[in-house]
Amino acid sequence: MVKLGVIGYGYWGPNIVRNFSGHQDCTVMAVCDKNPAALARVLTQHPNIRLMTEADDIVKSPEIDAVAIVTPVSYHYELAKKALENGKHVFVEKPFTATSAQAEELVELAERKNLQIMVDHTFLFTGAVRKIKQLVDDGTLGPLYYYDSTRVNLGLFQHDVNVMWDLAPHDLSIMDYLVGLEPDLVVATGSAHVNSLEDVAHMTVYFPNNILAHINVNWLSPVKVRTTLVGGQKKMLVWNDLDPAEKIRVYDKGADVKTELGVHKLLVSYRSGDMWAPKVEELEALQLETRYFLDCVKNSTKPFNDGQAGLRVVRILEAAELSLKQHKEVAYASVG
Amino acid sequence: MVKLGVIGYGYWGPNIVRNFSGHQDCTVMAVCDKNPAALARVLTQHPNIRLMTEADDIVKSPEIDAVAIVTPVSYHYELAKKALENGKHVFVEKPFTATSAQAEELVELAERKNLQIMVDHTFLFTGAVRKIKQLVDDGTLGPLYYYDSTRVNLGLFQHDVNVMWDLAPHDLSIMDYLVGLEPDLVVATGSAHVNSLEDVAHMTVYFPNNILAHINVNWLSPVKVRTTLVGGQKKMLVWNDLDPAEKIRVYDKGADVKTELGVHKLLVSYRSGDMWAPKVEELEALQLETRYFLDCVKNSTKPFNDGQAGLRVVRILEAAELSLKQHKEVAYASVG
Amino acid sequence: MVKLGVIGYGYWGPNIVRNFSGHQDCTVMAVCDKNPAALARVLTQHPNIRLMTEADDIVKSPEIDAVAIVTPVSYHYELAKKALENGKHVFVEKPFTATSAQAEELVELAERKNLQIMVDHTFLFTGAVRKIKQLVDDGTLGPLYYYDSTRVNLGLFQHDVNVMWDLAPHDLSIMDYLVGLEPDLVVATGSAHVNSLEDVAHMTVYFPNNILAHINVNWLSPVKVRTTLVGGQKKMLVWNDLDPAEKIRVYDKGADVKTELGVHKLLVSYRSGDMWAPKVEELEALQLETRYFLDCVKNSTKPFNDGQAGLRVVRILEAAELSLKQHKEVAYASVG
Amino acid sequence: MVKLGVIGYGYWGPNIVRNFSGHQDCTVMAVCDKNPAALARVLTQHPNIRLMTEADDIVKSPEIDAVAIVTPVSYHYELAKKALENGKHVFVEKPFTATSAQAEELVELAERKNLQIMVDHTFLFTGAVRKIKQLVDDGTLGPLYYYDSTRVNLGLFQHDVNVMWDLAPHDLSIMDYLVGLEPDLVVATGSAHVNSLEDVAHMTVYFPNNILAHINVNWLSPVKVRTTLVGGQKKMLVWNDLDPAEKIRVYDKGADVKTELGVHKLLVSYRSGDMWAPKVEELEALQLETRYFLDCVKNSTKPFNDGQAGLRVVRILEAAELSLKQHKEVAYASVG
Repeated sequence: MVKLGVIGYGYWGPNIVRNFSGHQDCTVMAVCDKNPAALARVLTQHPNIRLMTEADDIVKSPEIDAVAIVTPVSYHYELAKKALENGKHVFVEKPFTATSAQAEELVELAERKNLQIMVDHTFLFTGAVRKIKQLVDDGTLGPLYYYDSTRVNLGLFQHDVNVMWDLAPHDLSIMDYLVGLEPDLVVATGSAHVNSLEDVAHMTVYFPNNILAHINVNWLSPVKVRTTLVGGQKKMLVWNDLDPAEKIRVYDKGADVKTELGVHKLLVSYRSGDMWAPKVEELEALQLETRYFLDCVKNSTKPFNDGQAGLRVVRILEAAELSLKQHKEVAYASVG
Repeated sequence: MVKLGVIGYGYWGPNIVRNFSGHQDCTVMAVCDKNPAALARVLTQHPNIRLMTEADDIVKSPEIDAVAIVTPVSYHYELAKKALENGKHVFVEKPFTATSAQAEELVELAERKNLQIMVDHTFLFTGAVRKIKQLVDDGTLGPLYYYDSTRVNLGLFQHDVNVMWDLAPHDLSIMDYLVGLEPDLVVATGSAHVNSLEDVAHMTVYFPNNILAHINVNWLSPVKVRTTLVGGQKKMLVWNDLDPAEKIRVYDKGADVKTELGVHKLLVSYRSGDMWAPKVEELEALQLETRYFLDCVKNSTKPFNDGQAGLRVVRILEAAELSLKQHKEVAYASVG
Repeated sequence: MVKLGVIGYGYWGPNIVRNFSGHQDCTVMAVCDKNPAALARVLTQHPNIRLMTEADDIVKSPEIDAVAIVTPVSYHYELAKKALENGKHVFVEKPFTATSAQAEELVELAERKNLQIMVDHTFLFTGAVRKIKQLVDDGTLGPLYYYDSTRVNLGLFQHDVNVMWDLAPHDLSIMDYLVGLEPDLVVATGSAHVNSLEDVAHMTVYFPNNILAHINVNWLSPVKVRTTLVGGQKKMLVWNDLDPAEKIRVYDKGADVKTELGVHKLLVSYRSGDMWAPKVEELEALQLETRYFLDCVKNSTKPFNDGQAGLRVVRILEAAELSLKQHKEVAYASVG
Repeated sequence: MVKLGVIGYGYWGPNIVRNFSGHQDCTVMAVCDKNPAALARVLTQHPNIRLMTEADDIVKSPEIDAVAIVTPVSYHYELAKKALENGKHVFVEKPFTATSAQAEELVELAERKNLQIMVDHTFLFTGAVRKIKQLVDDGTLGPLYYYDSTRVNLGLFQHDVNVMWDLAPHDLSIMDYLVGLEPDLVVATGSAHVNSLEDVAHMTVYFPNNILAHINVNWLSPVKVRTTLVGGQKKMLVWNDLDPAEKIRVYDKGADVKTELGVHKLLVSYRSGDMWAPKVEELEALQLETRYFLDCVKNSTKPFNDGQAGLRVVRILEAAELSLKQHKEVAYASVG
């Protein structure tokens, strides 16, 4: 039985509590929030969970095995550090931390204490991303050419971070998962129109093996778009996360190149064929992810979305921030 | 009566000849192409037009008033120069020239000779772009925030230029038309997967007044997309050029910001309302544009899509090329 | 304070209980269901509501003012009758009853007892239908020409009634609301493929004033469709209930006819113009409807979706059933 | 070499002439039209074709082997009869004739004279319909359950026939092709709003083996729809003819029924799986069809879209007309 404490019961906290509570080998012992209205909501929905207003009462409680940190990013480092120091496993919202230095310190601390950190990159547990991962890993797409995501909508949901820190972690964690390599270079552009935080931004991430990633994030779009193109040498796919029926479409299209020796002439043969929309699992991603966290804690195995994965995402965001401000490319390796 | 000579009868040439021939005050005197099959097609479709294989016979012909240059970009400069030197007005395909230095020289030459240059930025004459221009100019959208275009498809249509030079001139000329300002900075990223020419690229163009333009071009997309978001302070619109029925959708949405003084708290009020798809003219754009060229020639008036407009587009492409190769931002003013 | 008893806690019951419970002037006193698992779900979600297994304990309870009947249609008549006889107001699921004779009896009984019957034609309280009603009533569409609905999906949700009784009541109640007239004739066709109940059916309902209604219902469609065309003399609209952003599109299109006298030649001038997607209210329909029921009960006013409205819908279904089985048209007035 | 005469050069005639002219073993000898403007267009596009104003000069010409009749339906019978009597093969627009009696007479005449009649059911030669036919014939869909077509748009294109005779022949010929059986019963409903011809109509055609066809045609729809659902026991498909990229989508969905013996309880198991959009040939249908006509003429083989096929379609239209007017079902066998 894993005994869990949850810090933060705002927008996402109820989902965390509901999902962890749903596993038989987990008990949500306590929820902490500074906001009395939030605690009142806990009481209505989960009358048996203890309510607290001081995070210290959770991170220091001897009864608690693991802590879920569901607060704004600026609190992640301090809370996670205390939790780890007190021997708790940590489940923490994305982005992992506000700086890569903080992330490195937490990773090292967890390592030393033999504790697990899992960063809540929820998208990695959706049916769509797991299907794409499978199509990459089993060679269906062939070697990857590019990943191109448009993630735009109307709404300034965050007041402490810009649109890149708000929306791009989803794509950065997915790319990290699909590509499995650390990037070389990051270039970001963008601007702020409504206040001093960028509300429109574009990131390019150069990976080894000539894989190019591009992310378009925007808080000022009149329409919501969640569409990603993934191009491989053999096949290409479109992932439209807003399509309830056919989230993933795999196209039997590609460009083959044959060079006629002697003539030095470029011939491009277009292949074009069927389209195929594989069935995508509709299980709630967070149910799978919380199940996986409990298993990692119980079996002392490191999750694939561990602190290192969270650190890589934060490092790209940091590089992007630097690139955007200084109008230059930033080497991933130079960050942190 | 304007007497026209046309150089090049490949993919686009037939449209040029057909449209100019359709105006009563224009005669297409001669078409030149090196390819006998192309000339045979002219004969079938326009039995009364003279056929030639040497461009010089057109640019030097005393009978001809104006020359339409419908060749690959690498020939534009030389042909346009000869035509202007021989006192002909010039209608030339986009992109105007291969370098901004060439464009500058041609602009100056035309100026000196009192001749008109028109660059075939056909999109400016579509019902959709004219409607967007109207919505910008009459203040419906309010001050512009951003222009964000996705122009992707499967196909390496060009073998001498990369995907930016192939697809981006459309958006660059539209932005030039809508914004009416020269940009400050250009940042471009991209990579080549099939041969040595970039087949995936992303451009950011920083304009004055905090207007941000972004263009996503890709020859390796499994699906064709021609979608542009235009965000203004008052309204935003989506232009989907592939939607036969409703190319433009104007959204009565926006983000207002009010700062509560004293509390220093950011309040964002979301407005959200009706959507409106104005009727878009369906006239063939090239018919309007060729009509406009003839009028400019006859009235000695400078077209808005003149050599200067063509030069601005080439300069941005040149800056983008430099930015992409050298992984840095490039000042527009530093180019050429 | 209206004290309510609810009979039936299957698929729809929880929504009824949740919405009535949400109004401050209503108390859900008791829920009755034969299924212990259903009662267990009540307990979890509403620990203070009394649980019962005998409907009689509700319809005869002196504490209860009104009864919501949320059972399969075959029980509606008997339960509603008992409730009315015991002086309770009745809120009953659609279709009102299994036969028009039953409906007539209940309407008369309620009349005699001065009690309200409301039939749960939920769609009438959606933002979309209320907007369409407004566009009809304020003359925007002009005189109605036709109502054409496609309501298909994969799934045999009902085991006691065919696809017409399952899906068509939605459209029949909407047409009744929009047109405000009793129909003249009903023609229905269809067939059964999976068992003995029709799973594909098509209904045509001839209204006065040359208004034609057509409903296409199908349990064996590979895709879900909820699209209705409404054509008027002045404008036409498309209601796509599955479009989350733009449920209603109003088209400034129409066909005008002018007859050239003397020449006896038919000229049809096509008007075509803008499209307009008005903002549609997103309030939960059932919240509005339950609020309206409580108001009708408290003010002793007859709801527009009263027993008479429910009876008209049942009468059309009965006529359609007859038409389908006997392969002939059936006069609405001949039914019941 | 087949020598062809074409009667009628309105909307469709140019496509007929262009396609027949494109085959090397066919010469279009003459085109006849009463309208001088039409003949002028022939001259521009095909300077070597003889022009005529009297159909008799074609149907009686000793030089001509076959006649294409591309006139309004009211002329089909008389022209085809003369052509056959003069020993010409006949290619005739849909619908074949204005009455089934006419069609029967022509079929018999052609039989007697050993001549071919082909009715221009162009859709049967599209990539989409050929793919659907293949999926039916190879058992992919399983036994057919239903064919349900929506074919609506804004526009009164015909002034001599109602919307059924204008739009339904497409679906009737496709059903005839797919099902391969003569129908049992026809039920049609509809009404006229703009003039005395029905502009909205709905047809149900009952085929043997419990196959149900339904066709929704409408000249007063604000949007153009060309969507057909085809349901089979094993799989179902959606054909959207307006989707340029994916006209046909095959769904791995179906409804299996298992009856638990003893319990007499109906269990329906839903299968649901992948969607698959097969590549559809994009060849011009009329090119294939005209090729096929020439082959049938040269090899004296009867086409599958022969006079008998045309007769079956006319008979259903006639039955539908009767059903619509008399508000009753009409037996197919009773017509003609």
